[in-house]
This record gives sequence, C-alpha cells and structure tokens, in this order.
Amino acid sequence: MKRNTILVINGPNLNMLGSREPAHYGHETWGAIEERLRAHANSLGVGLSVFQSNHIGYIVDHIQQSAGDTSGIIINPAGYTGTGYPIIDALTMTDIPFVEVHLSNIYARGGWHRDSIFSERAVGCVTGFRGFVYDLGLEAIHHYLNNKI
Amino acid sequence: MKRNTILVINGPNLNMLGSREPAHYGHETWGAIEERLRAHANSLGVGLSVFQSNHIGYIVDHIQQSAGDTSGIIINPAGYTGTGYPIIDALTMTDIPFVEVHLSNIYARGGWHRDSIFSERAVGCVTGFRGFVYDLGLEAIHHYLNNKI
Amino acid sequence: MKRNTILVINGPNLNMLGSREPAHYGHETWGAIEERLRAHANSLGVGLSVFQSNHIGYIVDHIQQSAGDTSGIIINPAGYTGTGYPIIDALTMTDIPFVEVHLSNIYARGGWHRDSIFSERAVGCVTGFRGFVYDLGLEAIHHYLNNKI
Amino acid sequence: MKRNTILVINGPNLNMLGSREPAHYGHETWGAIEERLRAHANSLGVGLSVFQSNHIGYIVDHIQQSAGDTSGIIINPAGYTGTGYPIIDALTMTDIPFVEVHLSNIYARGGWHRDSIFSERAVGCVTGFRGFVYDLGLEAIHHYLNNKI
Amino acid sequence: MKRNTILVINGPNLNMLGSREPAHYGHETWGAIEERLRAHANSLGVGLSVFQSNHIGYIVDHIQQSAGDTSGIIINPAGYTGTGYPIIDALTMTDIPFVEVHLSNIYARGGWHRDSIFSERAVGCVTGFRGFVYDLGLEAIHHYLNNKI
Amino acid sequence: MKRNTILVINGPNLNMLGSREPAHYGHETWGAIEERLRAHANSLGVGLSVFQSNHIGYIVDHIQQSAGDTSGIIINPAGYTGTGYPIIDALTMTDIPFVEVHLSNIYARGGWHRDSIFSERAVGCVTGFRGFVYDLGLEAIHHYLNNKI
Amino acid sequence: MKRNTILVINGPNLNMLGSREPAHYGHETWGAIEERLRAHANSLGVGLSVFQSNHIGYIVDHIQQSAGDTSGIIINPAGYTGTGYPIIDALTMTDIPFVEVHLSNIYARGGWHRDSIFSERAVGCVTGFRGFVYDLGLEAIHHYLNNKI
Amino acid sequence: MKRNTILVINGPNLNMLGSREPAHYGHETWGAIEERLRAHANSLGVGLSVFQSNHIGYIVDHIQQSAGDTSGIIINPAGYTGTGYPIIDALTMTDIPFVEVHLSNIYARGGWHRDSIFSERAVGCVTGFRGFVYDLGLEAIHHYLNNKI
Amino acid sequence: MKRNTILVINGPNLNMLGSREPAHYGHETWGAIEERLRAHANSLGVGLSVFQSNHIGYIVDHIQQSAGDTSGIIINPAGYTGTGYPIIDALTMTDIPFVEVHLSNIYARGGWHRDSIFSERAVGCVTGFRGFVYDLGLEAIHHYLNNKI
Amino acid sequence: MKRNTILVINGPNLNMLGSREPAHYGHETWGAIEERLRAHANSLGVGLSVFQSNHIGYIVDHIQQSAGDTSGIIINPAGYTGTGYPIIDALTMTDIPFVEVHLSNIYARGGWHRDSIFSERAVGCVTGFRGFVYDLGLEAIHHYLNNKI
Amino acid sequence: MKRNTILVINGPNLNMLGSREPAHYGHETWGAIEERLRAHANSLGVGLSVFQSNHIGYIVDHIQQSAGDTSGIIINPAGYTGTGYPIIDALTMTDIPFVEVHLSNIYARGGWHRDSIFSERAVGCVTGFRGFVYDLGLEAIHHYLNNKI
Amino acid sequence: MKRNTILVINGPNLNMLGSREPAHYGHETWGAIEERLRAHANSLGVGLSVFQSNHIGYIVDHIQQSAGDTSGIIINPAGYTGTGYPIIDALTMTDIPFVEVHLSNIYARGGWHRDSIFSERAVGCVTGFRGFVYDLGLEAIHHYLNNKI
Repeated sequence: MKRNTILVINGPNLNMLGSREPAHYGHETWGAIEERLRAHANSLGVGLSVFQSNHIGYIVDHIQQSAGDTSGIIINPAGYTGTGYPIIDALTMTDIPFVEVHLSNIYARGGWHRDSIFSERAVGCVTGFRGFVYDLGLEAIHHYLNNKI
Repeated sequence: MKRNTILVINGPNLNMLGSREPAHYGHETWGAIEERLRAHANSLGVGLSVFQSNHIGYIVDHIQQSAGDTSGIIINPAGYTGTGYPIIDALTMTDIPFVEVHLSNIYARGGWHRDSIFSERAVGCVTGFRGFVYDLGLEAIHHYLNNKI
Repeated sequence: MKRNTILVINGPNLNMLGSREPAHYGHETWGAIEERLRAHANSLGVGLSVFQSNHIGYIVDHIQQSAGDTSGIIINPAGYTGTGYPIIDALTMTDIPFVEVHLSNIYARGGWHRDSIFSERAVGCVTGFRGFVYDLGLEAIHHYLNNKI
Repeated sequence: MKRNTILVINGPNLNMLGSREPAHYGHETWGAIEERLRAHANSLGVGLSVFQSNHIGYIVDHIQQSAGDTSGIIINPAGYTGTGYPIIDALTMTDIPFVEVHLSNIYARGGWHRDSIFSERAVGCVTGFRGFVYDLGLEAIHHYLNNKI
Repeated sequence: MKRNTILVINGPNLNMLGSREPAHYGHETWGAIEERLRAHANSLGVGLSVFQSNHIGYIVDHIQQSAGDTSGIIINPAGYTGTGYPIIDALTMTDIPFVEVHLSNIYARGGWHRDSIFSERAVGCVTGFRGFVYDLGLEAIHHYLNNKI
Repeated sequence: MKRNTILVINGPNLNMLGSREPAHYGHETWGAIEERLRAHANSLGVGLSVFQSNHIGYIVDHIQQSAGDTSGIIINPAGYTGTGYPIIDALTMTDIPFVEVHLSNIYARGGWHRDSIFSERAVGCVTGFRGFVYDLGLEAIHHYLNNKI
Repeated sequence: MKRNTILVINGPNLNMLGSREPAHYGHETWGAIEERLRAHANSLGVGLSVFQSNHIGYIVDHIQQSAGDTSGIIINPAGYTGTGYPIIDALTMTDIPFVEVHLSNIYARGGWHRDSIFSERAVGCVTGFRGFVYDLGLEAIHHYLNNKI
Repeated sequence: MKRNTILVINGPNLNMLGSREPAHYGHETWGAIEERLRAHANSLGVGLSVFQSNHIGYIVDHIQQSAGDTSGIIINPAGYTGTGYPIIDALTMTDIPFVEVHLSNIYARGGWHRDSIFSERAVGCVTGFRGFVYDLGLEAIHHYLNNKI
Repeated sequence: MKRNTILVINGPNLNMLGSREPAHYGHETWGAIEERLRAHANSLGVGLSVFQSNHIGYIVDHIQQSAGDTSGIIINPAGYTGTGYPIIDALTMTDIPFVEVHLSNIYARGGWHRDSIFSERAVGCVTGFRGFVYDLGLEAIHHYLNNKI
Repeated sequence: MKRNTILVINGPNLNMLGSREPAHYGHETWGAIEERLRAHANSLGVGLSVFQSNHIGYIVDHIQQSAGDTSGIIINPAGYTGTGYPIIDALTMTDIPFVEVHLSNIYARGGWHRDSIFSERAVGCVTGFRGFVYDLGLEAIHHYLNNKI
Repeated sequence: MKRNTILVINGPNLNMLGSREPAHYGHETWGAIEERLRAHANSLGVGLSVFQSNHIGYIVDHIQQSAGDTSGIIINPAGYTGTGYPIIDALTMTDIPFVEVHLSNIYARGGWHRDSIFSERAVGCVTGFRGFVYDLGLEAIHHYLNNKI
Repeated sequence: MKRNTILVINGPNLNMLGSREPAHYGHETWGAIEERLRAHANSLGVGLSVFQSNHIGYIVDHIQQSAGDTSGIIINPAGYTGTGYPIIDALTMTDIPFVEVHLSNIYARGGWHRDSIFSERAVGCVTGFRGFVYDLGLEAIHHYLNNKI
C-alpha cells in the first residue's frame, strides 16, 4: 500500500505564529508546532509537507502543482477564511479531501471570523485548541484516508 | 495529581446510532464507539462516564448532579443544537470546559444543522468524522485540561 | 396483506382540547375527536394508536419505541412546531411517513404559528378544519400507504 | 335545504397534468381526477363545477361571474401562488370560503413554491398527496359548509 | 390650445366597487363615481375616458393603443399594485404622466398593500379618501399638465 | 353647524420654501402658497390656521394647545417624517384627523424620504405636486370632515 | 373575598441561584429569596406556591394541574425564554395573568437573552434587580389582581 | 447618610395622561399619580423631583443641570423611546443610574413601541401596570441605591 | 436529421421596440431585428417562429400549443422577468431548452430589472447588446442543440 | 478676496466635554479645544464662530440664520448622528459645504454610533483623534474652500 | 481603420479546464478553446491576446500594462467573481469595455456563484454554454466595438 | 527621542492616480502627492516610506518586513477595502497604529465603497479631500504618536 502524504497549508500571517497576540493564538511558534507534527506524522507512517504563503495566488498555484503527490490536506485559511474562493475551487478541482483547522474557536470570536466558506466543502473541522488543532487534524485526515468514512 | 474524569453527553436519538441513516451517521453503533472510547480513555489515564437522553430536562439535571465529579465534557447536542439554552446555562453555571462534537460536517448539511448555539461557549469543536469525533474530542479535552491553553 | 397501524401524536396542551379558546380550537374535546377517529379507522380497516405528552423527550422516546408497530403517523406538534428538532430526527431515523396537522390555519394566525419545521419532511399537511383535520389526515396517510404516491 | 355547489379553480398549466414531470405531479391526468371528483361530489350530494385558465384575468372574471352560484371554492393557484393578488381580492370581495390545494408538498420543494399568498385567507390548506388533494379538499370544504366551524 | 384628455385606468375587481367590503372601499358604486368625475372633467374643460380590466395584458394593450389621444393618466392598479411591471413599462414607454390613486390608505392596511411599485414613477399619489381620490387625482393631473411643475 | 377650522403644520425648514432647491420643491414661496390657501379656505367656508417650527417639541406643544379649536390637520412633517413619534402621539391623543402631504413624490426620491411613520395613522396622503399638495390636502380633509367617510 | 394565591415558576438552573456567576445573578440563594418572598406574601395577605424544574414538560404539566388554585403567576422562564412555546400555550389556555421577571437586565446582556417570547403575553415585565425582581413582581401581580387594570 | 433624591422624567405628551386613550394608559391623571408617588417617596425617606417636557432638548438640559442633586432617575421616554440618543448620552455622561418605565406593556403593543434604545443602559425595566409602574420604579431604584446590587 | 425550429418569445411592450427610450433599448425596431434574425436562421438551416404578447396567459397558451414543433426557445420575458412563474412552469413542463435574453444589461440598471426568476432554469443567458442579443441567442441555442453540452 | 468664516456646530452634550467619560472623549475640555481652534483659525486667516445646543430645533434655526455669513461648517452631530434629518435638510438647503467630525472612531464603537446619516452629504469626514479632529476638520474645510476640489 | 485587439482574461484555475469536473465545465480543454477562438478572431479580422493567472495582483498588473494595446476585454473572473474589486477598478480606470463570461449558468448553481460584482459594469454577459461562451463573447464585443451601441 | 517613521501603503491601482477618473480622484498624480508629502514629513521631523502594490500578498509581506522600522501607517486599501482581511491581520499582529484614508468620500459613493472592514481597527479615518487626505493623515498619525491619545 502506497504511503499517504499530507499537505499542511497555512494562510497569511501564520508564519508569525508565536510572536504575536498570545491571547488568541498561544505562545507556541510555528517552528515548534511543525517539529511536533513531523514526529507525529512519522509515528503514523505518513509523509508530511508544509506550505505557507501570504498570497492567495501562490496557495492556488501550490495546490495545483502538488496535487499529484498529495493524499489529504490540512488547511488553515486564516485571513482568506471568508474570501478564498479560488482556493476552494482548486481544492474541489483537484478533488483532494481536506480538513479545516483554526487555532482559536472562531465561533466564540464573532464577526467575520465566524463565516468560513471552507467548512461546507471540508470533510470535517477542528477548532479552538491552539497549535494542537494540527495534531488533531492530522489524526482526523489519517483516519479518514484509511477508513473512507 | 487527581485523575481527570471526562463526561460524554449524547443528545436525543443518538442511542439509535448505527441502525439508521448510514449516509449521514455511518454504520458504527454507539456500543462500538463507547467500547473503543473507554479503551482510549484508559490509555490516557482518565476516567470516562457516558450519559444519553432524549429529554432536555434530564440532560440539565445530569450536568448539575455530576458537576462535582467531572473535569471536562464532550457533548453532541444533536437535536438540541439550536435550542438547548438550558443545557448551555448548566454548562456555564457549573463552569466545566466542554468540546462540541458532531458526527457529520454540520456546515455541509445546511439548514438548521448549521446554526449551533453551543459553539461560541465551547473550548473547541470537532465535526465530520463519524464516530471518530469522540476520539478526537477525547484527545482534545485531555490536551486542554493538561495544558490549560 | 398486513393491516396498517396509524399512530396519532399530540404535542403539548392538546389534552386540554375543547375546554379552552374555542375561537381557535373549537368546542370539541379530544375525547370526542378520538372516538370518531377510532370508528373512522375501523371502517378503513387500519389500527389506531394515540399518544399525547407535554414532554418533548417522551414524544421522542415513544416514536423510537413504537417504530416497529407503526405504518404511518399523524402528528400535531403544537407548541413544538418551531423547535421540535429531536422529534423530526426521530421521525426521520425511524423512516415512518407522517402527515402534519393543525387545528387552526396556522398561516392565518401569523407569528411563530406560521413557521413549522415539520412541513418540509412531511408527506403532506392538512390545516384549518378544527378536529376534522385528524379525519382528513387519516384518509390522507391511508391513501398514501396504499398507493405509495 | 339548498344544495351546495363547489367550484374547482385550476391555475396555469394544470390542464397538462399527467403528461409531464411525474416526479412532482404524478401520472394521473386531470381528466381522471375530475371524473373521480365528480363521483365523489355526487356521493356527497353537492354540485361541482370546474374552471381552468392560464390567464389571471379570466380567473378573476370567472370568480366574479360565478359568485352567485358558488358555495365554496377549491383553488390550486399553481404559477400564481405568489403573485395572484387580484385573485385573492376577487375571493375576498365575493366572500366565498375557499380551500387551497397543491399537488406536491410545496414546503418540501423550497424556493418560490413555498411562499403562498393565498394561505392566510384560506379556510384551510391541503398539500402533498398528488391528485388526491382535490378529494381531501372536497371533503374539507363540504365539512366546513355543513358545520360552519 | 388643444384640450387635454385624461384616461382613468381601473385595475382588477374595481368594477365591483360599492357592492363589497364597504369598510375598506365605501358604499359608492363606480357608476356613481364616474358620473361625478365626468361632470368634474367637464367643468375643468378636459376630456375623460375610462377603462377597467381584470387582465394585466388588456391594460397594457389599452395604454399602447390610446397613447396618441391621452394627455395624462389616473391609475388605480389595485391587485397589480405590487406586480404590474408590464403596466409600468407601458406607461414609461408611452411617456404619459400619471397619478396613482388608492381608495383606502394603503399604508394603514399593512402587508402587500403597502409596497406599490408604481409610486416611484408617478408624478404624485393620492390615497385614502374612497371614491373622492379620483376627484383629487383629476385636479392634480390637470394642475400638473397646465403648470408643468 | 359649526364652521370647521383646519390647521396646517409645517415641519422644519419649510419656512425657507421657494428660496432653495427648486428642482425638488419648486419656485413658489410659502407666502404665496399660504395666500392662495387662505382664499381657497374662504371659498370652502372653513377657517385656516398655519404653524411652522423647526422644533419637534414646539410642534407637539402646539398640537396640544390648539386641539380644542381644530377640526382637521394638514401636516407636512418634512425632516421629522421618519422620527417624529411624539408628533404622532400628540395627533393620536388629541384624536384629530390629519392628511399627510409632501411637496415632492417621496417614493421617487428614495432613501429615508420614503419611509414615513405618519402614513399609517393618516386619513390619507397626497404627494408630488409641489405647493399644490396643500390645496389638494385642504379639499381632501374638507371632504372627509363633511362626509365622515 | 377569596384569598389570592400566587404561583412562582422558576425555569431551568434557577435551583442553583446564589452558587454561581454572581456577576449576573447576585450572591443571594433561592432559599433566601423564597423566605423573604413568603414573608412579603403573608404581609399582603396572599398565598404563595413555588415550583422549579429543568424540564419544559413538567412546567407545562404543573401549570395545567395547579390552574384551578392559582390567581396569578410570576414566571422566570430562564433558559426557555426564547423557546418555551408550550409554556406560553399552557399559560394562555388556563388564562391566568402572569408577570415575567428576570434577575439581570436581559436587554443589556445582548444575544438570545434579549428575545423573550413571553413578554408580549405578559401583563407586565420586571427586569434587572437580582432577587428583588420577585418582590416587585409580587407587588405588581397583587396590584393587578386587586385593580383589574 | 445623605438623603437620596429621585428625579422622575416624563417624555412628550405624558402631561395629557388620564385624558386620552384609557385603553392603553388608564384613567388616572398624572396629578393623581404624582400625589401618590410623593407620599410613597416620603414614606421611603427619599426626595422626589418631577420634570416633563415635549422637547428632547429641554430634557437633555434638565438632566445636565440637575445631575448634582440627583441620586437616581425614573424615566418614561414615551415618544423618544426609539430616537432619544441625546437623552441616553446625557444619562451616561452624568452617570446617574436610571430605571425605564412604560405604562403599557410595550412588547404586547408591537411596532416601534417595542424597540427601546434605553433598555440596554438601564439598571432595570418595569412595564405594563399603568400608573403603578412609577411606584414599582420608585421601590426598585430605592432598593438599588441602598444595596448597590 | 430533422431541421430544428427555434421559437422567439417576446414579452410585453417589445412590440414597441425602436419607437421609445433609445437610451435603454436602441433605435432598431423589432421589424428590423426580425428580418436580420430570419436571414441568420436561414444561413444556419433552422426554422424560426416569432410570438409577442402583452398577456402572460397567451404566452403560456402559446408555449403549450407550439411545444410539439419547437426545438429550442429564445425568450425575452421583459415585464414578466420577475413575476412570470406560469411561463417558467410551461417551459419546464414542455421541457424545451431556452435561452434568456435582455436588450440592456439588466445588472447595470438596478432595481427590479436585476432579479430574473428565469435565469436559474435557462440553459444560458445573453444580456446587454441591444437587438444583437437575439443573434447571439440564436447562435447559442443552435450550438446547444447540436452539441448537447 | 473675502475672508472665509467657518462655523463649528456642536450637538447635544458636547458642552460637557472633558468632564465625563475620558476613555471615549479624552480629558480636554471644550474651552481648551476652542481656544486652540481660534488661534489656528487666526493663523489661517479665517473667521471662526461656534454654536452648541442640545436642541435639534435650535441647531436648525442657527444654520438658517447664519447661512449668509458662513463659508463652511464643521459639525459634530453627536446624539443626532442617526436621527438629525432636519439638520441635514438645513445644511442642504443653505448649500454650505460641511465636514463631519467625531471625537472617537465611531466605526470602532459599534452599535448606533456607526450609522451616521450625515456622511453621505459631507465633503469629507474626520474621526478618532479626540479634540484634534476639530483642527484637522478646520484644515480640511479651509483646503476645500481654497481649492474647490 | 485600426485593427481591434481583444484581450481574454481567465481567472484562477481556468488553466485546468477540461481535466476536472466535466459536469460543470465540459470536457473541452482550454487549449482547444483557445485554438478555435484564434481562428474565429482571424476570420473577424481582430487580434487576440490571452492571459491567465491564479493571482489577483497579476491580473490587475496585466490590465494596467496592456491597456494601451487593448480595444475590448472578455473576462471570466472565476474564483474572483465575488471579491475581485481591484480588477473592476483596473477595468474602470483603463476604461476598456468588457464582456463577462461564465462556462456554466451561474444562476442555476446557486450560492456564491450567483453574486457577480462584475455584471453591473460589464457591457453585457454571456453564461452557460461551456467553452462556446468565449465564441459568443468574442462576437458580442466585436459587434459592440463596431457599432458603439 | 527616536524619530518616528511613517509608512504609506497604497492598495491596487493607486499607481495610476491622476491619469484616470478625475471626477472621483482628482487630477493630481501620485508623484505630485508624494513629493508634497515628503516635504510635509520633513517639516514635522518624521521619516516617510511609501509602498504600493496591486497584490494583497505583497502588501502583507511588506507590513511584516517593515514592522520593525515603522511607527505608524497611513493606508489607502482601495480595492481591498472590503476583502483585505489578511492585511488587517498583519496590521493587528504587528500592532502598528494606522490611519485609513480614502481620496473620495466613500460614504457618498454608495455600494461596496461604503463597507470598509478597516475602519473599526483604525485609530481614525480621513476621507473625501482627494490627495490632501494623505496630508491630513500624516498630521493625524503624527499627533497620535506624540500624544498617545
């Protein structure tokens, strides 16, 4: 059986994780999260690839280009949560299952944070546990790919 | 350190899980999910208690009565997702952190399934992976209680 | 051919029918309606069972428990017309066809009476003819079960 | 006692019943429904008159002209369900009680089918049982005229 | 100076004026109103022509055909007040100034009576004085045509 | 028979009529309109009194104080068209019938001009004929008082 | 003159009063409030009965059963403030006048707290003075019953 | 301890209380209410001052000028209930706690009566008991000032 | 292969094309457009039939009657763009593919022009090029019929 | 070249500036702001006039009376921001260009603060810099008057 | 006469045309469409230039840079249909007429597909005929440029 | 004291300023504005840096990269005014105070121009004075940084 490869896509400003607004995003840097996540992927026997960009266009480009090598996606659309239609189109066209994650509980924060346009196309959503949502997202997409629920 | 006890609350009709509408809820019965969940809790070293009722009143009663012995809650409000204010009041008054789970991706199903009144008070939400959302919810609340994120 | 059994479910306060608010509900008591309805069922050769409760939880319990013996349901959700999602879930999960009835024309009365959450799942609706809606509902569900329209 | 006469008014395109879209309207032609309805009226001892037009103006003309000979009306407004104000005005001005019927469950079909402007003026409504709604409507208006509920 | 000719257009059911619903429309018949209106027109030295139809199509036809002989229009759109777009198009295309009149105060009656689609194209509106609105409308359009306000 | 006295109430800025924005309000000054109106009142045999204020409070005071001597009111609420609740309360409490007038066709101008809170309490409305709306309003209220329509 | 008996109905979670969330509900326990209220009732010469339940169904049952012995009701619907239609139906059907009370100013707290479905059927409302709203509610319903305002 | 002084502010048209619309406001005149209220204040040992105006500006002036001598306010904003922002600003700036009262149950009357902009800033609200709301309001603000709830 | 026949349906007032409002509709008369269109149809080898009516009823009649001879429809619903449900029903029932055309860009004109109820059932839409939309519509429906896209 | 005169209009409660709610309005009194503003005006060579009132009527009066001597206006409508239509009418009728200023960033404060009815008629807006908005407003209107942008 | 040059702009993911979701977009690749389109352009005697990008920024850059050489634009905004304001600004600022095209009938697909922000600025729109919309769009803009309709 | 450096960020298409649409944006080119602004900054003793891009991604990149050297920001989001959430996140995460400017009065232009998502996070806003808004913005942010209002 071919090993699954999971692609993590981080939207705009997530490269700054850990340096700002700890009340909403926690103190953990992305570097620390990624290190833990790679160990987690190893223990599950899946490959892991990470991509971050502030540009909606580069995110679309990357999904198109990596589609052939990707089994499932964990996406944190961040600032494109409510406007990223081209990203959704790319995800739909390449037909790769994806889990949507958010560091904070977007429903508790109100305003535009609440209205994600990704959720209705996602396999499922995990929100509110800071950097740990990536771990839960990884287990979830792994479970999904192996059980075709 | 005192062992944490997690309370799983299942709303109306979830006792019928596995016997109906597999397209939305999967083929797994609640019995099978609970068995796996208890093993999972054991391996994490936390206690696990399960409660299901079709009555909004008994769910409120139960939260009040078990508050003293409960560290965290995993709740699937099911048919009370949009109207269960007394349950939210009980959760808020007893001040126990809770994770909201749904078997299906409620955002993809549209209509009233989408508008949860629980989400804005939850620590976080996990949706869309059938019975596996209880596993993810258990890991999430466990992580939350140990890290006080 | 197995004889069909029809379950009549009456929501909260319908036990008081005939004693209050005749302008909206008429002077006929539930006892009188039920008597006529049983004769009507007899003449159609179908079984008839009646259940009333003020508790949303007991209505859900009852639908689950009587599912095996029920061919079709006539439901007057009364005060749960706009909030009874668990009842709808129970009806959907047990997959029993149901007709929704209301004593008064709920569209003419305005306000929350108007917004039924049951209608879009019902086989059909009959409203506005006082106690006679149960007779029409009985003929309708009987016709439906025999013609599988 | 003077014999009651019931007028059936069919809105636009209902002359094509039975030839198109059986998923929504069934296979029965209007001819077959009318034949059964006339027998039904006979057995109840009421007169029956039928009128169909694609023109909103002719429907209004007809209501005005037949008002003197009509005890009650069964109307299926079809394509004028949401815009037929002049028909409602004619019904109100001539003060003839009417029952609104629809072949399919308009609440389940969504969109503009849902918003009837007739319902709040009707004595009652019957929807969702294909051609059988005319039979139920006939019994209903007959019961109404004899009991003045 | 050429004598002005005023066309009165009455929408559906206004031929029944005086025979029904006196609480809203008064006891005066259209015949009585028209007689008084013709005398009024005579005293102002203007021609008067009257047209009533229950058919939206005939109203449009009539506006097109009488455009050459008409200086101004008094229109009571009645049941087409909220849906008569083709009438508005005909009035706009023929470029004849018109006054909108309603027998009752449509703002006080609520519901769809309130939302006229004619008002924003009218020179002005007169509502609420029963049959006397035609007299006021006649004076108003006469004043408008002579003063080009 | 006691002679009727009509009170004309002009809201804020109407004292400037004729000096500004002729496109919307015409070139006629209030002085000219009032002169013509007094002659018109004389010919109808009714008394006429005029009051203008930029202050909502003084308008309320004036209605209270002149209630005993006033048979009917013509009011142009101008800038208080959408917020003048105390004026409406005063009109309702003193129970004097009133006609609402506006110089321009408020429906054609869009925005807040359109939403009058006075219309639903008025006997009737006249809009769109510049200063001539006061003449039409005077005839209308005179007709109303003499015919008690 | 027969002594009036007032029924106090407390909705879900109000049994926990005084132990939780003092910022919204104050430090006073229900026991303390009830003791003061009984003394107050005594001094007014009225009987007092108290009922609390987390179950909407038991609240409806109780209203039906105690209707014969109850002159007026003070109700704090708590978590059923926005969904308790069956309670309103029971109150309407038994025709007992009721005062709605809330410990906190529900208008200041925003969200669903604001939209009470009880207010439009209540004789009056008292909100915002913690446990003292029961005292004010008692005086208010007592005044109402003696003066039939 | 300094004696508290309570200021009663009555909005537009409340000077006419008792002379008009008894169905909504009762037969009691303001003079009678004030007399009873002064006796009530005396018995509580608080000072009482009353101010009524039809002018929004004078109400603002008065709040500013009497702020130094006022411990609490009972305000019936009447016709300024939905538009009196400057009054709210004055109340907020002077930081005097206030109770909002309405003679009738504004929630039952519908329309603009319902949407008070004062409620969310008030300590609490009392509605629906005619002139007796001032008595309840006086007890409420007195209780509030002495207990600082 | 059977030759396709295309039916052009023009809604109300389009018979007046070219004589009025050139800013919106251009100077070309319908006669000129039709002549060019017939030549265009000839060169494509398809039959062409044209129908115009101001009556919604006659348009429905015509669609029903010509259904047997029609392969595809080009419809300009004009004044029935937002209310012509019976026309849509006729188009759906006869199952003839249709293209919706509008002379002006209805999205740029705002107001009710914008909300077409036809678009969601059309194969496609062409708007904004004056009389040339019929040419584009003809090519489009011809292409559709030959390619069954 | 004639010297420009700028009129500063301050709405209700701005006379209390500096004494209340420093979190929103700052510690600076109006006296201090005015003094600095007069020096600023001097240095720009423009006249300066200041008017404050709690009365909407006096603000309208003042605009009318000072129109002849005023080149531009700086207005802080304060509590009339959302209801001051008569002020807007006065500003429009006198045709004096105005700049709207607010001490705090009204967009950040939410609620009714956000919806200004003045903005769409203003030359421009300056918000959020406490008392300094008057300085920026003065420079802005001065720049506007000299450049006729 | 200078030869017109038409620029085709394809938004995000349209480079993948023909490889995905044939139900919505058809089987034709962009390569095939472009080839046919170039032949079509040749036969009309116009130049053709094509640009595709997933980046909103590059689309804006390209419009600015190619403005001097472009007579008309055919744009398929795809995933930027509802959010591409900077593209609309670029189109407006460079003042090049454009036709909006969509492969599928966006009105039939519902949701965000429906709400184009481009349509109100376009000369016209063509939707629903798969790759053939580019051919129709080319004829349409060619016709527009030659006739200046 | 360290010298403050102000960053000016111009959104899409602002590089074209002065060449297009003078009615909305004026005739001044960005070059001319920048020159004047640099002189202005010099005279205030602050550094000035300018950045323009049509790409939302590059604007986010730039804010992140220049955060260390920037004291305050003047931003004209232009076409990203309603969708630029990633820009707002970058501004919030780097915690640099910013002033929002728009060349035209966006409130007067209507439509999407009106709904800025930046305003509620800005220190303040300046709109409507063409290129001079940058000067006012510079003075405003300078004042803010020096006074920490």
